[in-house]
Amino acid sequence: MHGWSGTILNVDLTTGTSCREEIPRRMLEEYLGGRGLGVRLMRDYYHLDPFDPAMPLIFAVGPLCGTPSPTSARLSVVSRSPLTGTIYDCSAGGRFAWRLKAAGIDLLFITGRRITPVTLSVTADAVEILPAGSLWGADIPTTVAALTGRGSVAAIGPAGENGVLFANIMMGEGNSVGRGGMGAVMGCKNLKAVTVSGDRKTVIADAKLFESARQDIMRLFKASPVIFGPLGISEFGTPVLVDLMAQRRMAPTENFSKTFFEHSANYSGPTIKDVCGAKKDGCYGCPIQCKKSSKKGKALPEYETVSHFGALNNIDALHTIIRANDLCNELGMDTITAAATLSAWGEIRGAYPTAGEIPCLLNDMAFRRGDGELLSLGSRRLAATLGHPELSMSVKSLELPAYDPRGAYGMALAYCTSNRGGCHLRAYPISHEILRKPVPTDRFSFSGKARIISIAEDTNAAVDSLVACKFAFFGASLEEYAELLTAVTGVEYTPQRLKEIGQRIILTERFYNCANGFTRADDMLPERFFGESGSSGDGIDIHPIDRTRFEEELDKYYRIRGLNVNGCFDDQNFLEKQP
Amino acid sequence: MHGWSGTILNVDLTTGTSCREEIPRRMLEEYLGGRGLGVRLMRDYYHLDPFDPAMPLIFAVGPLCGTPSPTSARLSVVSRSPLTGTIYDCSAGGRFAWRLKAAGIDLLFITGRRITPVTLSVTADAVEILPAGSLWGADIPTTVAALTGRGSVAAIGPAGENGVLFANIMMGEGNSVGRGGMGAVMGCKNLKAVTVSGDRKTVIADAKLFESARQDIMRLFKASPVIFGPLGISEFGTPVLVDLMAQRRMAPTENFSKTFFEHSANYSGPTIKDVCGAKKDGCYGCPIQCKKSSKKGKALPEYETVSHFGALNNIDALHTIIRANDLCNELGMDTITAAATLSAWGEIRGAYPTAGEIPCLLNDMAFRRGDGELLSLGSRRLAATLGHPELSMSVKSLELPAYDPRGAYGMALAYCTSNRGGCHLRAYPISHEILRKPVPTDRFSFSGKARIISIAEDTNAAVDSLVACKFAFFGASLEEYAELLTAVTGVEYTPQRLKEIGQRIILTERFYNCANGFTRADDMLPERFFGESGSSGDGIDIHPIDRTRFEEELDKYYRIRGLNVNGCFDDQNFLEKQP
Repeated sequence: MHGWSGTILNVDLTTGTSCREEIPRRMLEEYLGGRGLGVRLMRDYYHLDPFDPAMPLIFAVGPLCGTPSPTSARLSVVSRSPLTGTIYDCSAGGRFAWRLKAAGIDLLFITGRRITPVTLSVTADAVEILPAGSLWGADIPTTVAALTGRGSVAAIGPAGENGVLFANIMMGEGNSVGRGGMGAVMGCKNLKAVTVSGDRKTVIADAKLFESARQDIMRLFKASPVIFGPLGISEFGTPVLVDLMAQRRMAPTENFSKTFFEHSANYSGPTIKDVCGAKKDGCYGCPIQCKKSSKKGKALPEYETVSHFGALNNIDALHTIIRANDLCNELGMDTITAAATLSAWGEIRGAYPTAGEIPCLLNDMAFRRGDGELLSLGSRRLAATLGHPELSMSVKSLELPAYDPRGAYGMALAYCTSNRGGCHLRAYPISHEILRKPVPTDRFSFSGKARIISIAEDTNAAVDSLVACKFAFFGASLEEYAELLTAVTGVEYTPQRLKEIGQRIILTERFYNCANGFTRADDMLPERFFGESGSSGDGIDIHPIDRTRFEEELDKYYRIRGLNVNGCFDDQNFLEKQP
Repeated sequence: MHGWSGTILNVDLTTGTSCREEIPRRMLEEYLGGRGLGVRLMRDYYHLDPFDPAMPLIFAVGPLCGTPSPTSARLSVVSRSPLTGTIYDCSAGGRFAWRLKAAGIDLLFITGRRITPVTLSVTADAVEILPAGSLWGADIPTTVAALTGRGSVAAIGPAGENGVLFANIMMGEGNSVGRGGMGAVMGCKNLKAVTVSGDRKTVIADAKLFESARQDIMRLFKASPVIFGPLGISEFGTPVLVDLMAQRRMAPTENFSKTFFEHSANYSGPTIKDVCGAKKDGCYGCPIQCKKSSKKGKALPEYETVSHFGALNNIDALHTIIRANDLCNELGMDTITAAATLSAWGEIRGAYPTAGEIPCLLNDMAFRRGDGELLSLGSRRLAATLGHPELSMSVKSLELPAYDPRGAYGMALAYCTSNRGGCHLRAYPISHEILRKPVPTDRFSFSGKARIISIAEDTNAAVDSLVACKFAFFGASLEEYAELLTAVTGVEYTPQRLKEIGQRIILTERFYNCANGFTRADDMLPERFFGESGSSGDGIDIHPIDRTRFEEELDKYYRIRGLNVNGCFDDQNFLEKQP
C-alpha cells in the first residue's frame, strides 16, 4: 500500500536557516499541490506587502510530478503580486519542477531577506545559501550558464533585481514565471537564483491503472486537431493563433483601439517557421513540444508576444519582435506587460514606439532609468500618472493579453472574474468561442457564460494544482487526469472532486483579495470596450460590449460563486471553515 | 534683496550616486517645504509599492528652519506608508532638521536600495555611503552612540530592519518619526542611519520684522495656560492630558470597549513627575521644552503611550509602561500602534497581555518571531487574520490614539477624514472640544465640525510645511507665523494664503489616495463606536455615535472639499492643474 506524502523545504533567508517538514496528509488530499497548496499556505501571509521581507515565495510541484504523466513536469510559483496586489500564482514548465521533486521536495517555501545577494542551492542532501558575487547584475543567459553545473536553474535578471513590477523568474530552459512580478519579489529578497538537483524517484501506487490512463491521454492528444493537427500547436506553437485571431477580427491593435492589423501575417506561425526554421522544443518528457526555438537555439516568441509587440505597437517587422522577445527573456521581464505598457505609453504620447526605440526602451525599463522608470510600473500606474487612467488596457492592473474582449464575450467576463487580474489562463473561453472545443458557443453572447467560466476556473485551478499543462486539455479531460492521480496517489479521485478542490482554491484566493480591499469595482473592463467599436470587416461586426448584459452576467457569476453583489463574502469566517 | 532658494540632495542608493539640485522658486512659494514640498515631489511616485526600491524616502525641512523661529527645528519625513498604503508624512523634532539645513540642504530625497547595509553621511561638502558593518542588528542607543561623532543621527532599529509595518525612524535625541512605518521603508533600502552636520547659516530677509513677530509669539506662548500654565505641557509634558481625559470619561480602555480606567492616576503627568523627577527637554532652540526625561536621561513616555500601554491594555503599573516605552524606542517601533495591536490581540484571545508578557511580546514584534510575526503587521491585518476584523480600532489601518471618539465628535470625524489614517495630528478638535482653544465647542455635537475640521486640516498642513510644531498653536496663530515667514523669505504671506497652500496639500494627498483605490468606505470608524456605549459616570453619558449624523457631516466635509459623494475626485486632471 502506497502512502501519499509530501515535503516542504522551509528556507528563511534572514536567519539563513532551513528545515524539512511533512505536509499534513489531509492538506495534500484537499489541495493536491502546486497552486492549491501554495494558496493554502499563504493563509497566514496574504496581508503582507508583496515586498515585505516576510512575504513567502513558494515553488510547489504537484502529485504527478516525477511520473511519466503527460505534461506534468511543471510547478506553480505562489506569492502576492507587486503589480496587481492580488494573491498570485503562475505555472511554469522546463526541468526545474521535475528536479525539485527529485531532490525530495514538493514545496519550497522561501521567506526573509538576505542582506547580500545570494543564490540558493538545493539537493537531496543539502541546502546551501551561497554568495551571488558578480552574478548580481548579470542577465539571464549569463546567470544560467554560470549555475547550470549545479542543476536546473530558476533565476532573475536585472529587471527582478531593480524591482520592475512585472519582472519574471526565468527557468534555465527558457520558460517564464511571468506576468505578476514574481521576479521582483525574489529580487527584494536579494535572491538571484535557485538551483536544484536530485535523483529520487516518484513512486506510483497503481502502475497498471497509471499506464492505462496515460495511454488514454496520448490517444486523445493524437486525435486533437488543436494539438497535433496540421495547424496544431505542436507544429507551429502558439503563434498559430495569429491568423485565426486576424480572421475573427479580434487581434488587439494599437492599444486595443483597433482589432485588426494588416501586417499580422508577418509573424504568423507558418511565417515564423519559414523564416526561423523553428525547431520543436518543450518541457521535460512532454509529448506535445509546443515551444519553438531558432537555429541558434533561442526560444522563439509565443502568440501573445508576437501579437502585442506586433499589432498592439504597430510594429510589422518580425526581426524587431524577435529581438524584443529575446531582450525581455534576457533581462527577465514579462513580454505581455512590457509590450502593453509600451503601447499605452505610445497612445498617450501620440506615437507608438518605433522599431529603433524598442530595444532601448526595454533596457531602460529593466534598469528603471529615463522613461523606463515610469514604464517599469506597468500600464495602470503609468497611465494614471500621465493623467490618462482610461488608456491602461488592464484589469486589476494586469495587462490584457491578445484576445480582444469585444470579439469573445466569455473572454471579456473571464478577464474580470480572474483572481490574478486580466489574464487568459484562469478560464480560456477562447477554447469554445473560437477553437470550438469541447463544443462551440456563440462568441458574441453572454448567455450561459458565467456558469461555463466558473466551471473552467475550477477546472484550471485543479489543473494548476496537479500540476499539469492547460494545453493537455485541448485533448484530454479531468476524467483521465483524475484516473492518473488516483493511480499515482492511491486515493480515489473523480472529475467532480477535482472541480470541488478547484472551487475551494478560487474562493480562497478571492477571500484573500477581498480582505485586501478588492471589490466588484476591480472586476471591470476598461471603458474603451464599452464605448468603442473594433475593426469590423469581412462580414464581421465588432461592436462595443453592452454594459448592462456584462453586469448582469457578472451578477450571475457572483451568485454562482455564493458571493454578495459586491463580489465579496458575507461570511467573514470562510477561511476557518476550510480544511 | 534676499533671494529665497532651496536645495534638494538626491541620493540614489542603487547606483551610489548623489547630486544637489535647486528647487524651482515657484514650487518653494507654493509648497513652502516639509510636508508640502515632500507631497509635491511624490507626484511621480505615489503609485509605487512602499517597499519598491524606487520609492523615495524624503526628509524635508521648511523655510523657518535654521532661524530662531520658535518651534521650527523640525522636519517632515514623507513617503508611502506600508501600514496604511496612503501617502504618508510625519513631523519630527530634535536637532537633525536644523543640522540638515546647516549642511545646506532643504530636502534629502533618497531612492533605490543598497545591496549591503549602509549608513549615509551628509555634510556641507560631502555625501558618503558607508558600510553599516556590525551596526546592522543594533538597537537605537547603540547605533546613535556609534554614529554621534558624525553629527545628528536618524536611525532605524531591529524593527525597521525586519520590516515591522509600524517601525519608526528615531532621531538621536529620542524624537520619533512615528506611526506609519517609515522605518520599514528605510530598512528595505538597507539604510541603517543617516547622519548630518554643517555650519551654514540661514539668512533672514527682514531681521526687524522677524524679531517683532518672534516676540509676539513668545508673548502669546507665555499667556497660554495650555503651554505655560501650572497644568501646561511645559510643566508636565503631554501626560498632563491623562487626568483631563479621565474626567471627561473618554480615555480609551481595554481596546476601546470602555472609556474610563480607574488606575489612570498611576501614570498622570504629576505622578510621572513625582516618581521619575521628570526633567524638561526638547527640540533645538524650542522655548516650550515639552519633552520630559528621567534622571537617567531616558525619554519619558508621551500621553498616547502611557494611556495605550496603560488603560488600553489594562496595565496599572507605571514602571511596566515606562519599560514598554523604552523598549519601543530602543527597537524603533511606534508606541501607539504597538500598544493598540497588543490590545486588539488581547481582546481577541480573551486576555489582555500581562505586565510580564509585554517586554517579550515587544521583542518578538520587532524580530517578527512567534506571535510577534502577526503582531508586527498592526491591528488591522492581525484582527482580520484572526477572523475578527471588527476588533481593530483603526481607520485606514492606522490605530486610533488615546481620545475616544464617542467623547469628542469632531475627533471622530477628523480620524476618518485624515489622509494618513486614524490620527490626531491632521486636525486636533480636542483643542476646542476639550481644551477650549481658541473657543469651546460642544463635544457631543457634529454641528459645524466638518468646516472646523477642514480649516484645521489646512492649517496643520501649512504648519507641517513651515515646519513648525503644532503645540505652538495652543498660543500663537497663523497670523504671527505668516509674518515670520514673510520676514525670513521676503515674500508676502497672509494666514489666508497659508491656508490655501494647506488645502492644496490636503487635496493632493487625497488625490494620491483615491488613485490608489481609497474611497468613502475607508473614511469610516470601526463599528464599535456606532454600536456600543462608553463608560458613563460622574454625570457624563458616553453614548454610541449616531451613524446618520456622522454620515451627514462626512457628506458636508466632502462638499466643502469639492469631492464627490464617494470622497473622490470627478476631475481626473486635478494634479496637472496644480503648480
